[in-house]
Amino acid sequence: MTRAELIKNIENKKSVLCVGLDPDLTKMPSLFPSNSNGVVEFCKGIIDATADYAVAYKPNLAFFESLGESGWEALAKVADHLKDYPQHFSIADAKRGDIGNTAKMYAEGILVKLGFDSITVAPYMGKDSIEPFSILGKWGIALGLTSNPGAQDFQMKKMEDDRYLYEHVLDAYKEWISPENWMIVVGATREVSMRKIRHQLPEYFFLVPGVGHQGGTIKHVMDSGVFTSGIGVGVLINASRSICYASSDKNYASAAAKEASRLHEEMKYYWPQ
Amino acid sequence: MTRAELIKNIENKKSVLCVGLDPDLTKMPSLFPSNSNGVVEFCKGIIDATADYAVAYKPNLAFFESLGESGWEALAKVADHLKDYPQHFSIADAKRGDIGNTAKMYAEGILVKLGFDSITVAPYMGKDSIEPFSILGKWGIALGLTSNPGAQDFQMKKMEDDRYLYEHVLDAYKEWISPENWMIVVGATREVSMRKIRHQLPEYFFLVPGVGHQGGTIKHVMDSGVFTSGIGVGVLINASRSICYASSDKNYASAAAKEASRLHEEMKYYWPQ
Repeated sequence: MTRAELIKNIENKKSVLCVGLDPDLTKMPSLFPSNSNGVVEFCKGIIDATADYAVAYKPNLAFFESLGESGWEALAKVADHLKDYPQHFSIADAKRGDIGNTAKMYAEGILVKLGFDSITVAPYMGKDSIEPFSILGKWGIALGLTSNPGAQDFQMKKMEDDRYLYEHVLDAYKEWISPENWMIVVGATREVSMRKIRHQLPEYFFLVPGVGHQGGTIKHVMDSGVFTSGIGVGVLINASRSICYASSDKNYASAAAKEASRLHEEMKYYWPQ
Repeated sequence: MTRAELIKNIENKKSVLCVGLDPDLTKMPSLFPSNSNGVVEFCKGIIDATADYAVAYKPNLAFFESLGESGWEALAKVADHLKDYPQHFSIADAKRGDIGNTAKMYAEGILVKLGFDSITVAPYMGKDSIEPFSILGKWGIALGLTSNPGAQDFQMKKMEDDRYLYEHVLDAYKEWISPENWMIVVGATREVSMRKIRHQLPEYFFLVPGVGHQGGTIKHVMDSGVFTSGIGVGVLINASRSICYASSDKNYASAAAKEASRLHEEMKYYWPQ
């Protein structure tokens, strides 16, 4: 999916909702078998129920890998199901990061073989661990500032020029990777507003790992995520558990749809004019 | 495997050789089919040929994932084969790193389900992305200073106290994780000697991503890797391509054995008295 297509899909639907698929055997409705087949059916059910409201889906690879060898088979089936929704942007939340020749292999497996539109990647190993994910027609999504408590440990440490590590990471991204096929993971924290990060990165899409907890409101994220050019809401806002586990009963799909619709309505209400 | 057992295995064999398994379809001997079955047989062949000289094996997960859904099946078969060598320490080179509940899932899949002794993990997301890998009887191996060119980009950046980022990361590890079940990935670079890092982390095992290129000699790595207590050589030195692709012919196994034996002989020759 090109950047122009993604922006069009978002504007047409007035939605920046990304549904995170974190299939957890201990939380899935009991009508599904507690195995990889159950995981596939559950994920398909969530996708089908929420497709009208979402513009993106983000399977979290850890939850599939936790199943052992059958997990990747399940992941491939979910990836296949997502191909029935070509207007929806698919994200493999994998946070891979390794040296060049190894990164290339991850890109081959996840973007080419499984066919995801994009993959999340981690920056600790530097430029040669990031660049191999720049593959024609695919996207990389690089960690910038995350919203977990551990973001304080290194990302929010001050460098010798008195700026935070995460700011240096974002500067490096501006040199290395293009907003045409790269997004940045940005969680708002208590100390850093999304507006500040938008100022640093005027034209990149942000993948926002969820609102509510520390991340401020949907309105705030959308307002401050608008591209500096003024054209387009440059964020995807992820919601995982609140949608996937809206109900653990037979009505799980309608409950997921209801929560996705609620989030979509809020996005429409605050859509920038 | 406990730390005491690992040290005993190393001292008995006078070897710190870790064989990296990076099965690349384009480099594998042509006698193997160019698919996941071929990968399994090739890896088994390398393992069987080098077991007398090595103390550890390190499959690189990217090379398995590059095969798509059949890759994890292949990985599980290689992991099973490694169980026939309980004296050899197994490392899933996965470089995972994500928030706490997700990290827990990676640990479940790779350490529990696939049964690896250890997994490599990345620190960018901080403490809650590291700690979940502290599982009874298993090891985590955390990135410290890597040896790729990209190590310059962030790891070797100066912080406000004029120390490098990687030094802060190592300080954090000392607080968070124990040398009883954690190793640190340490590649020597032009600017930083392994001796300096041993001084900072007196009792942690180092996984050293290879010698020769920028990393100095086996003698140097072994000498400076000795635990500060003076008891035990606290490193594992990885060699991947030089062993796996010593020959691309029918004699690949004997060629791999020869190269592993050569490295082992060098280790024995320089074994600290």
